[in-house]
Amino acid sequence: MTPHLTHEPGVLSFDFDPDADRLHEECGVFGVYGNTEAAAHTALGLHALQHRGQEGCGIAVSDGKLINIERRQGLVGDNFSRRDVMDRLKGSLAIGHNRYSTTGEVALRNVQPFFGDLDIGGFALGHNGNLTNAHMLRRELVQSGSIFQATSDTEVVLHLVARSKKRSMIERFIEALVQIEGAYAFVAMTKNMLIGARDPIGIRPLVLGRLGDGYVLASETCALDIVGAEFIREIENGEVVTITEAGVESHRPFVAKPARPCVFEYIYFSRPDSIVGKRQVYDVRKAMGSQLALEAPIDADVIVPIPDGGVPAAIGYAQASGIPFELGIIRNHYVGRTFIEPEQQIRQLRVKLKHSANRSVVNGKRVVLIDDSLVRGTTTMKVVQMMFEAGAAEVHMRISSPPIKHPDFYGIDTPRTTELLAATHTMEQMRQSISATSLAFISVDGIYRALGFDGRDSRNPQFTDHCFTGDYPTRLVDQHGLAGKDQLSLLPGVRGS
Amino acid sequence: MTPHLTHEPGVLSFDFDPDADRLHEECGVFGVYGNTEAAAHTALGLHALQHRGQEGCGIAVSDGKLINIERRQGLVGDNFSRRDVMDRLKGSLAIGHNRYSTTGEVALRNVQPFFGDLDIGGFALGHNGNLTNAHMLRRELVQSGSIFQATSDTEVVLHLVARSKKRSMIERFIEALVQIEGAYAFVAMTKNMLIGARDPIGIRPLVLGRLGDGYVLASETCALDIVGAEFIREIENGEVVTITEAGVESHRPFVAKPARPCVFEYIYFSRPDSIVGKRQVYDVRKAMGSQLALEAPIDADVIVPIPDGGVPAAIGYAQASGIPFELGIIRNHYVGRTFIEPEQQIRQLRVKLKHSANRSVVNGKRVVLIDDSLVRGTTTMKVVQMMFEAGAAEVHMRISSPPIKHPDFYGIDTPRTTELLAATHTMEQMRQSISATSLAFISVDGIYRALGFDGRDSRNPQFTDHCFTGDYPTRLVDQHGLAGKDQLSLLPGVRGS
Amino acid sequence: MTPHLTHEPGVLSFDFDPDADRLHEECGVFGVYGNTEAAAHTALGLHALQHRGQEGCGIAVSDGKLINIERRQGLVGDNFSRRDVMDRLKGSLAIGHNRYSTTGEVALRNVQPFFGDLDIGGFALGHNGNLTNAHMLRRELVQSGSIFQATSDTEVVLHLVARSKKRSMIERFIEALVQIEGAYAFVAMTKNMLIGARDPIGIRPLVLGRLGDGYVLASETCALDIVGAEFIREIENGEVVTITEAGVESHRPFVAKPARPCVFEYIYFSRPDSIVGKRQVYDVRKAMGSQLALEAPIDADVIVPIPDGGVPAAIGYAQASGIPFELGIIRNHYVGRTFIEPEQQIRQLRVKLKHSANRSVVNGKRVVLIDDSLVRGTTTMKVVQMMFEAGAAEVHMRISSPPIKHPDFYGIDTPRTTELLAATHTMEQMRQSISATSLAFISVDGIYRALGFDGRDSRNPQFTDHCFTGDYPTRLVDQHGLAGKDQLSLLPGVRGS
Amino acid sequence: MTPHLTHEPGVLSFDFDPDADRLHEECGVFGVYGNTEAAAHTALGLHALQHRGQEGCGIAVSDGKLINIERRQGLVGDNFSRRDVMDRLKGSLAIGHNRYSTTGEVALRNVQPFFGDLDIGGFALGHNGNLTNAHMLRRELVQSGSIFQATSDTEVVLHLVARSKKRSMIERFIEALVQIEGAYAFVAMTKNMLIGARDPIGIRPLVLGRLGDGYVLASETCALDIVGAEFIREIENGEVVTITEAGVESHRPFVAKPARPCVFEYIYFSRPDSIVGKRQVYDVRKAMGSQLALEAPIDADVIVPIPDGGVPAAIGYAQASGIPFELGIIRNHYVGRTFIEPEQQIRQLRVKLKHSANRSVVNGKRVVLIDDSLVRGTTTMKVVQMMFEAGAAEVHMRISSPPIKHPDFYGIDTPRTTELLAATHTMEQMRQSISATSLAFISVDGIYRALGFDGRDSRNPQFTDHCFTGDYPTRLVDQHGLAGKDQLSLLPGVRGS
Repeated sequence: MTPHLTHEPGVLSFDFDPDADRLHEECGVFGVYGNTEAAAHTALGLHALQHRGQEGCGIAVSDGKLINIERRQGLVGDNFSRRDVMDRLKGSLAIGHNRYSTTGEVALRNVQPFFGDLDIGGFALGHNGNLTNAHMLRRELVQSGSIFQATSDTEVVLHLVARSKKRSMIERFIEALVQIEGAYAFVAMTKNMLIGARDPIGIRPLVLGRLGDGYVLASETCALDIVGAEFIREIENGEVVTITEAGVESHRPFVAKPARPCVFEYIYFSRPDSIVGKRQVYDVRKAMGSQLALEAPIDADVIVPIPDGGVPAAIGYAQASGIPFELGIIRNHYVGRTFIEPEQQIRQLRVKLKHSANRSVVNGKRVVLIDDSLVRGTTTMKVVQMMFEAGAAEVHMRISSPPIKHPDFYGIDTPRTTELLAATHTMEQMRQSISATSLAFISVDGIYRALGFDGRDSRNPQFTDHCFTGDYPTRLVDQHGLAGKDQLSLLPGVRGS
Repeated sequence: MTPHLTHEPGVLSFDFDPDADRLHEECGVFGVYGNTEAAAHTALGLHALQHRGQEGCGIAVSDGKLINIERRQGLVGDNFSRRDVMDRLKGSLAIGHNRYSTTGEVALRNVQPFFGDLDIGGFALGHNGNLTNAHMLRRELVQSGSIFQATSDTEVVLHLVARSKKRSMIERFIEALVQIEGAYAFVAMTKNMLIGARDPIGIRPLVLGRLGDGYVLASETCALDIVGAEFIREIENGEVVTITEAGVESHRPFVAKPARPCVFEYIYFSRPDSIVGKRQVYDVRKAMGSQLALEAPIDADVIVPIPDGGVPAAIGYAQASGIPFELGIIRNHYVGRTFIEPEQQIRQLRVKLKHSANRSVVNGKRVVLIDDSLVRGTTTMKVVQMMFEAGAAEVHMRISSPPIKHPDFYGIDTPRTTELLAATHTMEQMRQSISATSLAFISVDGIYRALGFDGRDSRNPQFTDHCFTGDYPTRLVDQHGLAGKDQLSLLPGVRGS
Repeated sequence: MTPHLTHEPGVLSFDFDPDADRLHEECGVFGVYGNTEAAAHTALGLHALQHRGQEGCGIAVSDGKLINIERRQGLVGDNFSRRDVMDRLKGSLAIGHNRYSTTGEVALRNVQPFFGDLDIGGFALGHNGNLTNAHMLRRELVQSGSIFQATSDTEVVLHLVARSKKRSMIERFIEALVQIEGAYAFVAMTKNMLIGARDPIGIRPLVLGRLGDGYVLASETCALDIVGAEFIREIENGEVVTITEAGVESHRPFVAKPARPCVFEYIYFSRPDSIVGKRQVYDVRKAMGSQLALEAPIDADVIVPIPDGGVPAAIGYAQASGIPFELGIIRNHYVGRTFIEPEQQIRQLRVKLKHSANRSVVNGKRVVLIDDSLVRGTTTMKVVQMMFEAGAAEVHMRISSPPIKHPDFYGIDTPRTTELLAATHTMEQMRQSISATSLAFISVDGIYRALGFDGRDSRNPQFTDHCFTGDYPTRLVDQHGLAGKDQLSLLPGVRGS
Repeated sequence: MTPHLTHEPGVLSFDFDPDADRLHEECGVFGVYGNTEAAAHTALGLHALQHRGQEGCGIAVSDGKLINIERRQGLVGDNFSRRDVMDRLKGSLAIGHNRYSTTGEVALRNVQPFFGDLDIGGFALGHNGNLTNAHMLRRELVQSGSIFQATSDTEVVLHLVARSKKRSMIERFIEALVQIEGAYAFVAMTKNMLIGARDPIGIRPLVLGRLGDGYVLASETCALDIVGAEFIREIENGEVVTITEAGVESHRPFVAKPARPCVFEYIYFSRPDSIVGKRQVYDVRKAMGSQLALEAPIDADVIVPIPDGGVPAAIGYAQASGIPFELGIIRNHYVGRTFIEPEQQIRQLRVKLKHSANRSVVNGKRVVLIDDSLVRGTTTMKVVQMMFEAGAAEVHMRISSPPIKHPDFYGIDTPRTTELLAATHTMEQMRQSISATSLAFISVDGIYRALGFDGRDSRNPQFTDHCFTGDYPTRLVDQHGLAGKDQLSLLPGVRGS
């Protein structure tokens, strides 16, 4: 049922992660201007943004003459902690990127920042988001002789910049931006300019901070905190900022539109200690829990979060309902996804590698289990079973986000529609599927209430929320006429090293 | 101030772990008899016991003819997940060991199980604990021609078994046990017998479970849970069990003494979901929090645990005090101890790699910060500062264990006395040292109350608690006449591979 | 004195290879059409061509639909022997490449074959040789928006093919060929066509063989031998062959010119068991030794080759002179270039790691030392000293190639002119520099005689021999107006991963 | 037919080395006293002795207080070239060892030097040779409580030293020596004494040299040459030397016997540039070739050595016969034993990875093929076929050692008797088996003549030559009553890490 599972007869090896059944993060970006240890700061910033992408990471640095790049597979702390690596990254201007693959296979050549050695100088680029017309643009570029190295949609932007006839890099980059569609937060750099950009409706986040005499760009404020930078403001939707010796300059190349940031940053992408849209994420999640207690109350003995995602909402639910919050599930923090599974082991094993029931909390109790989302339901089902096996009298599943019925095309790794439990099951079918005593989700309007609104403004929705509503905020050029996301292979002619 | 820190001029690299300032775990053991996938179960059991030791791990398996052993540095999941490794470990009898070094350097040759190819057959041995007369015994053995390979105290037992003239392995092993002193939970094996043993007063834990038609020995019940084994009972203090085709047999080679298990298993060694001495560890920790609220109440706005150790006590404190429990500190779960530290970074950086303040929870609030222990105080100091920098109005530090004033010699890695903050500072000096608004510890009697007693029975203390009281439960032969633990070098003649 | 040497005070580490002071090989290419195990044959072929390049190797395979590529740093046998790697390379059409870097740094992105996912399909390319107008072409391509990934000159060809507006890949490739200048033997492929090409005067070698019902292209015949292929013929100068279902087809896009292959293939690039230009290379080298004996005879006791390069010429010299051939120098076949050099070690150490004097052969004797070339003279000097220290009465150095006075720009890694001993020293100065009793080189005409001619035809030289004569056979566009080879940095904007 | 071959259906992977069908070398030892860079010199010495063992290597160093040891699998140059490794090996007294496994599996714990931390101090030991009563001694030691870690026979000596009651280490070591039987050259050390020892009849070699003010021990003189040490003399049979501040002291603990060194050192173990028994090895091998030409002349066109072992004898044969010496077989120096073998490849492939026929030398010629030995015949058969396929009219195989009919028990890795071609075939059967036109071996007396004697003295044979004659020079205690070498498993109870 999960794509990571490898079945073999008899003893089987597997690579199951209870976290696999969540929506996955979609890259983090970071940039520094005007600090002599730009790369060291970038490594710290990327470490703070590690939850947004773990497959690969890269840092590009300019010493004013040359741009040097190191790109690696794996975590920042495993790759950018060694002195010899950092010694190759001298300079006071840097950008960095954490990758979670949304388009493109996992390969070093897809790790960002990307770089082009253009006629007017070097240009490096890191991207959080996903372009919805990359496929079409790529086809046109290849037809006129461009050679793509990676399978990522981001490389399209690099080629558009290379092909532009404008005199300056920022003019070329803006010319590229007006050709692309979709969701993006970009950090980019020339040898002496740091650039940041958000898409016209600001789907993906980007913030600006001050670090001593210099500046920092980051996906989230938690990355400002780790380097001790002061938060200035969010980059606005449709804004392009350039940071040079002359300071910060703002460009607005698009027709103004109302902002519509992605609601999933609040639900679980951003770290609880980050501030997004002037709201502390932890507070929003607690409010979602409180709202859920209001919408779907239940008479129960104990509130148990599925760690770690469900904890803030569970605290909110517990405070609103007066039912005690307890750690009914203990998380094993040691990495251990892959083991040889003994044949006679019961089906719970895979969940047990990370989670175990805390029997005295659960035994004989009516348990309210809180999680922040339900995607395929595979993990939820196992956790509910684990609760019953630990003696729970009742297990009431409460989800602090609405049912996910529609795939994302803006940088979130969603399974195809047929695998989304809520897209193919009624509420009662879902409840049966996970074997819970009861099941409830927060409403869409409930989410907006937790965010401080009376509800969703259906004419001008305040957030990008298509996964719940099907209301996609942009055209989907590459999807047009295609039956499914899977047909979108961007590099048909090659796989390889 | 911490031994892991490497200072260099200018930019400095470091290896600081906020968890470094805790007492460290002291090995986990596991054994399986009568299951055709003994090694695969042992790997899972060791994974569940990973919190007890992360430096090395090993598995010995018997197929009834040969004992095969694999020993590795690092985590179980990184070493015993590969098919080719597990394929070398065929058999239905196995023991395994997680090592956290207490004596002996970090080196593969110190990773257990140890093995001796004796005249009456092979013998493998894994040990949780520490012997207090190993140095003396080793000197005698070397003088009569024994050659030691490792620097660990455990190897002494292997040589005593090899030197014994008894006919059977169990008689030899018991002859060895009566010569050693200190703390131990042993798992051992011949090619067709699984053996478990606890020291005369049962300082270190060991439990027995049933797995299908076979049996399991483990340091904690959480390791029974992961393999789906049923808990039978604890091995008693001074008991040696042998498990063969004939079933489980119990031996009691020592003069009976009252049990006196180590109280630190409750305070933080055992996992919260384990059951120790018929008590769920999570419940005990919550009770310590409640007791602490009773002993050291304070008028405050919010209860904040230092994750993850302080969470159960914080829940207990919050429930007892009625002050809301909140995640005021967010933990970064990605490994990242080693980074190049930028010069102008403030002194908080090292804590920030793992912990960050959740500003909206803390800002303007009177914060009660809960942790399970205070050893050197280095991390606590930084966390308190982080709270104030996030806007806390007051920070009241509450510790759910009594002040640690005395080193351990039974398998817990304690710093030397001069580094223990409570051994050299008054309460007020400690408070100043960590810059908290107030500081309080639970009392020694409070600990006993949380464990269900009226208080400590000073004539027959119910637990081993010398770190708080200085009341060591056994002779300390190797320490006698020595000024400090540091003089105990067990292998003076060699270092190396 | 050698670029591989790293001096540090006191004990010094070094990376000195006695073979470092030779001209270095310049890549090997291989291709297979019509064999279901195309990649396995390509790996074997590249192994046989390993002497032509050891820095990296790659294989591209087509299964008729997709082209898969694996590129690695290091030797073929270390990279293409594993089942999992080879299992990813299914198909009956393959090309392969061994890289010795001539232009471009050492990095995985410079390892060939290169690949482009073009609008009319995938195209893979491997190159032996060097283009003399790549710098100019690259500048033009970058100005019109092409993005280069590697620093190699070969990538220019890929972009020219991508930019071509021709309908078919072979037309596009030929359009690219007519724009480039210099030396090349190319193997290239689409998903169903194998292509081979030699430059207009055939500087670099390429041969065609039959393998069962299919075909093979290779730099040398020794690669045909290892796979059991039958030699058909050499690809001619200026010829482009395409191999498809329809068989082998020949194209001749250039104005016909007389062939002028590189004479260094005979002197030491090609393996002695290869047949080049209908001549067995071993025979040619022996004939050079005989000719040298004729031109520079000496009264001596023993002929000693510097292994392994000097052996065939030494056998020829010995047979012509009647002086016995003996192994006066023993080669250590174990890799060991890098050691910590003890301070008091004499200056011979670095040569001794690979070579040692065979005392009884040399002691008291008049030695004729034979080598195939003298470049900087650093190794030669040490070997001569080693002979005297082993007791040689006289050491007569004889070189079976003429003095090297001019750098190469066609794919041979020559040091800059100022480092070429013969470019800056008279014959007597050279003799003194290496401390030999006498020194002689074969004449340029002598080389031609060993190859079966009466001498060099100065109007229409039969071979490319500019290193001896300064007579470059093509224009040197990129060199024009430049003082030295070193100024030719092809990728000024970036270094990196 | 070879143990290294792994057959699988269809495409097969293999690990065939043409050199596998030779007798294998049996360890090299080296020691330094009185040089502040003892470890760096030892690494160089072991590199020069690398041909004696490639499976593992180790160095022990004393700084006067502690003995530090590093042991590694693989080559010296891959393990002892890194600065961090060498920096851990400070001191002016060192011993080193290259291992080719004769007894004991391949595992790090079998790599020498071995070390014991004894009551009177540390003792390290390296061994070339094999003990013929180790099995019996080991059994006795285990029965009295000794624990063995390795499977090597050498560890027995360490335990005997540990068990000795003598006051000084040298007395203890000598007490151990008088208990063991077989072949040995030992280097050993305490923290301030270097020790060397040869068995009573001097089967295995050991030489003494002077290095500045200090001393060197080595298996061969080539290791003196690489560090610039001056040869003093061979350690005599039955001699034990101790080297301390007081200089070199000689001990003779055994009843005097005539020396009887192993003749295989001349035939192919020692490097040609080494001096063994006052004879240059290269000269002896040439003399064997000349003698072979005398004993087995043939009318032929060309003398072709099988490289590299056959080269000196081929030069001798050529000079004696007047038939020209030519490189009819070219050796590929790049490592490449393991490849995926294409199905339709002919049976020659495995030989072709290392050897290729030089067609012009062989085609149409009557070839005399020279090798230094014939063991199983598997490689010889393939090389003869390769000659015929390259066009040879006749192939006359000449072997410069007598037929090998008996296994060795003194440290040479011989196959079991049933695999020795000469033990089970007549001369004509052997000829047919390898498909040669004719086959001849040098006679046993011929070997002695090449060594300067009139022939073998059958009453007091001058050399250990049982592989040819069956005349074993010592008792074979462990073999007594056993059908074959294979039953001698020294460590029945364990395999493992």
